[in-house]
Amino acid sequence: MGVMIVGVGPAEGYLTDRAKEIISRADVVFGSRRALKLAEPYIKGKRVEMTRFDKNEVEKIAKMGVEMRVVVLSTGDPMVSGLGSLVDGRVEPGISSVQLALARLKVDLCEVVVVDAHARESYDEIIKAARFRKKVLILADKRFNLEKLKGLEELEGMDIKRIVVLNNLGMENEEVGDSIKSDLAVIYLEMDVTDENAEGSQQR
Amino acid sequence: MGVMIVGVGPAEGYLTDRAKEIISRADVVFGSRRALKLAEPYIKGKRVEMTRFDKNEVEKIAKMGVEMRVVVLSTGDPMVSGLGSLVDGRVEPGISSVQLALARLKVDLCEVVVVDAHARESYDEIIKAARFRKKVLILADKRFNLEKLKGLEELEGMDIKRIVVLNNLGMENEEVGDSIKSDLAVIYLEMDVTDENAEGSQQR
Repeated sequence: MGVMIVGVGPAEGYLTDRAKEIISRADVVFGSRRALKLAEPYIKGKRVEMTRFDKNEVEKIAKMGVEMRVVVLSTGDPMVSGLGSLVDGRVEPGISSVQLALARLKVDLCEVVVVDAHARESYDEIIKAARFRKKVLILADKRFNLEKLKGLEELEGMDIKRIVVLNNLGMENEEVGDSIKSDLAVIYLEMDVTDENAEGSQQR
Repeated sequence: MGVMIVGVGPAEGYLTDRAKEIISRADVVFGSRRALKLAEPYIKGKRVEMTRFDKNEVEKIAKMGVEMRVVVLSTGDPMVSGLGSLVDGRVEPGISSVQLALARLKVDLCEVVVVDAHARESYDEIIKAARFRKKVLILADKRFNLEKLKGLEELEGMDIKRIVVLNNLGMENEEVGDSIKSDLAVIYLEMDVTDENAEGSQQR
């Protein structure tokens, strides 16, 4: 009985043995089409494809969890802009696109700030993040305005040293470049700090 | 040919299929005793146990990589206070203790700042992190001074709302409590911001 939220990774080959086992023991498995496909070989119970995710869905899952072993799949890691904080239940981690981005860039998680820019304005947060640490990872989709981001530098007394856009991380069409080509894009922003106000962002 | 740095996760059961395959193809596998044990079932080449990790080791690995397929194992994820930024070569991610901590706490990575406090003074960075975001994850060992951390609140005009210490994450002796019992501890610090200076840390 109970609900578990399980990370399936960003693409094929990233499932852990623990995740596979939890999935295979579930009576019901909820997930997006993409998440269900990644978990497919290990699902033995009933599949429920989620086309949207709202309060009704959360309540339905909680109710089912009282009588059955319910798994909710989350692409990537449930605690990286994922379902882990939205659904009640124990979380089993998965590899996230943030980890793949850091791997490609060879930058440590302890040197960056991760900002979620999916479906919301996040420029203020990005500026504050860049003042605290010069390296920022932005989780973005096609609606994110890269030109606006580049324009922010003058306003804030900081210079942009480097912008890298990582598209479709872990997939066959993975592409590291300078434009957003996917709703699963990660933008790496590295700043040079040039004015006094931004002193707090210096890393030791 | 070449060098790959592969994350083996924090404990048994966290290896991905991709990591297993890379490990099984290696001619030589470098790793700490703990990392080698986690990867053991998949190693077909020569094992080299690393008791320390320095410049000589890095050069040795690079030289071997010219003629052989070399894997360097990293417990957790190579890009979370790991070997990924120290060794030349492609990085394959693994599940980190940061992910397990966030899973237990049900807090999203995009809400926190991760600070590495292993073997160095990090209180200034923790204060700045808490001012930017109210939630901070600190990677710590037994030498970390939890009392000093608690004392910082008066100095900085912020109140500590919650401190949780997560010890031995993913292992049989995992323990969530209020004291550091392991050199692989993660401390979660959540602040209430009470003065004006700290306004920048308000989350939207």
